[in-house]
Amino acid sequence: MFRSRRLSRKIFVGTVPVGGDAPVSVQSMCNTDTRDAQTTLTQIRALAAAGCDIIRVAVPDMKAAESLREIVSGSPLPVVADIHFDHRLALASIASGAAAVRLNPGNLSGGEESVRLVAEAAGNAGIPIRVGANGGSVQSDLLAHGHAGALTRSVLGQCAMLEKYGFSNIKVSLKSSDVASTIEACRYFAERSDYPMHIGVTEAGTPGRGIVKSAVGIGALLLSGIGDTIRVSLTADPLEEVRAGIRILESCGLRAAEPEIVSCPTCGRTEIDLVGLAEKVEDLVASIKSSGKKIRLKKIAVMGCVVNGPGEARDADIGLAGGRGKVVLFRRGEIMGTFDPEEGFALLREEILKYTEC
Amino acid sequence: MFRSRRLSRKIFVGTVPVGGDAPVSVQSMCNTDTRDAQTTLTQIRALAAAGCDIIRVAVPDMKAAESLREIVSGSPLPVVADIHFDHRLALASIASGAAAVRLNPGNLSGGEESVRLVAEAAGNAGIPIRVGANGGSVQSDLLAHGHAGALTRSVLGQCAMLEKYGFSNIKVSLKSSDVASTIEACRYFAERSDYPMHIGVTEAGTPGRGIVKSAVGIGALLLSGIGDTIRVSLTADPLEEVRAGIRILESCGLRAAEPEIVSCPTCGRTEIDLVGLAEKVEDLVASIKSSGKKIRLKKIAVMGCVVNGPGEARDADIGLAGGRGKVVLFRRGEIMGTFDPEEGFALLREEILKYTEC
Repeated sequence: MFRSRRLSRKIFVGTVPVGGDAPVSVQSMCNTDTRDAQTTLTQIRALAAAGCDIIRVAVPDMKAAESLREIVSGSPLPVVADIHFDHRLALASIASGAAAVRLNPGNLSGGEESVRLVAEAAGNAGIPIRVGANGGSVQSDLLAHGHAGALTRSVLGQCAMLEKYGFSNIKVSLKSSDVASTIEACRYFAERSDYPMHIGVTEAGTPGRGIVKSAVGIGALLLSGIGDTIRVSLTADPLEEVRAGIRILESCGLRAAEPEIVSCPTCGRTEIDLVGLAEKVEDLVASIKSSGKKIRLKKIAVMGCVVNGPGEARDADIGLAGGRGKVVLFRRGEIMGTFDPEEGFALLREEILKYTEC
Repeated sequence: MFRSRRLSRKIFVGTVPVGGDAPVSVQSMCNTDTRDAQTTLTQIRALAAAGCDIIRVAVPDMKAAESLREIVSGSPLPVVADIHFDHRLALASIASGAAAVRLNPGNLSGGEESVRLVAEAAGNAGIPIRVGANGGSVQSDLLAHGHAGALTRSVLGQCAMLEKYGFSNIKVSLKSSDVASTIEACRYFAERSDYPMHIGVTEAGTPGRGIVKSAVGIGALLLSGIGDTIRVSLTADPLEEVRAGIRILESCGLRAAEPEIVSCPTCGRTEIDLVGLAEKVEDLVASIKSSGKKIRLKKIAVMGCVVNGPGEARDADIGLAGGRGKVVLFRRGEIMGTFDPEEGFALLREEILKYTEC
């Protein structure tokens, strides 16, 4: 916990650096049909606006690999091609301008020669390859090494197949649907290699469970200094993945929330509609930020009661605390006045806008 | 990470053990008016049904302390009284049968004598006191020790005020609205005391942000062996707190999900309504469990594609994987047959019911 960050090699996925001293980036994967370039681009633009840094698309056939050219040329984000089995799809995706390829050399159906061709093409294009192992896809003969050992050996073996052809522009992933196994495998690998690591918990499920599982697993790894790029896997709209990913980085202090909004849980002491008020403040901040403006405040607080509110949130630049049908407005713990909730919110809004710049 | 659990003293909140080898329990706090016993009890019952182990209510005045008697006698969960400033509210709450009191001796307005009275009353009743410090409420003269040091010194100081009167049936909390500070403070304290610890991130905010923040903070602590009881603080219905708390325990392997449901993220390879299917399976499992029945399966998988599905989920007892408008049903990685999605779900349902017992 709070170890200094593992120093990995730096690679580039398009213009986005991954590893070394680069900021931890957020990834997602389109769930559109890659053959439909326009629909896929619409989704990529929405994900980019939400803060996604790198996007991956599935390339299940040659039509998808061709469509990739249009996607790459219209995408505001570097596009990673996700390939299984068929090295020709990898070659075609590289020709279409993919910023990276995700494939496991060990499962290419063409064997050794297809690995050589892919390594050569990616090398010539100057793009990285992500190799990875998921808990379920690891070779069964490696399971004797324990889960973490098996995943690590599997990934190192895949890397070696590329290294044999002089290719080391590699990023790796080790994922399990079990949080503890994911963490163990990533830590085990991190001690044995300096390849940059893409981290995540696989098959995390629908948002209710999946966000918690991912936050626990990815959060624990990031706080222990492991992880160069993350993906939250959810059975949901990929926008949810990006939002959760950004929140994980914010929670780990790896991305500034700008401003952070804190609000206390409601309790029997609360005499105002705190949930409603907190949501109004969040909506206000979100709408200012989505218009491209910047709020020069570090922390805004929305507190339930005057008893604890201003004191507990004394490090907030500004905040509201509820009283008996009233709210107090405070700045850095100092109470500025007591107002009706509507009026209090209006004043808070005014203050926030004062600190907003284009 | 993955340290063995810190060995704390065991205390009891009502019938619920906290600390030592006791399972990590989930807490929440009512946001109803404590003076309205019936409404509060309705909320407590809903929280108990959702899996809450311990409930806290605010006691802001004498009417609330009296109402507590009715709440305690009707509550399926041990009830903790939350007190600020006024030791008479603590005494009245103890007389009303509170299973524990949460207060800071240092902020009782009656000084030394009121601390003695509260310690004596709690001692006679055999109930514990939780003392705690939040980032904002720590005495400013302690801030020179750094955040973690200040929180720890503040809590140890509060404990000493009770210990002076021979009272050590204590549980502590150290919370900050910042994840890193919370973790740091709890680790710092954990090395210096064996009191059981209630952990959480305070003022985590509305569910979107708050669940992630809590999962990262509480998860990292639990995985490093710290934490005997947890509360997720959300500006939301306390039910959300309980659900998130249970999911954090499940993610950390501290409570069995029974059965765990895994589902992969959708991608361009998905040709069925995976989100819909995963939700149907979750709803089915939830409805069986909420009727008090037990499902004797460890893992159910809902996978997007036949390419990876059955293999990646080979440790699942049973699962579905999507194909071109079809699904395959598999058991421990072995494909049982290919069906229309409706039919596949019906068969999965039948299998799940086979393993369901009262």
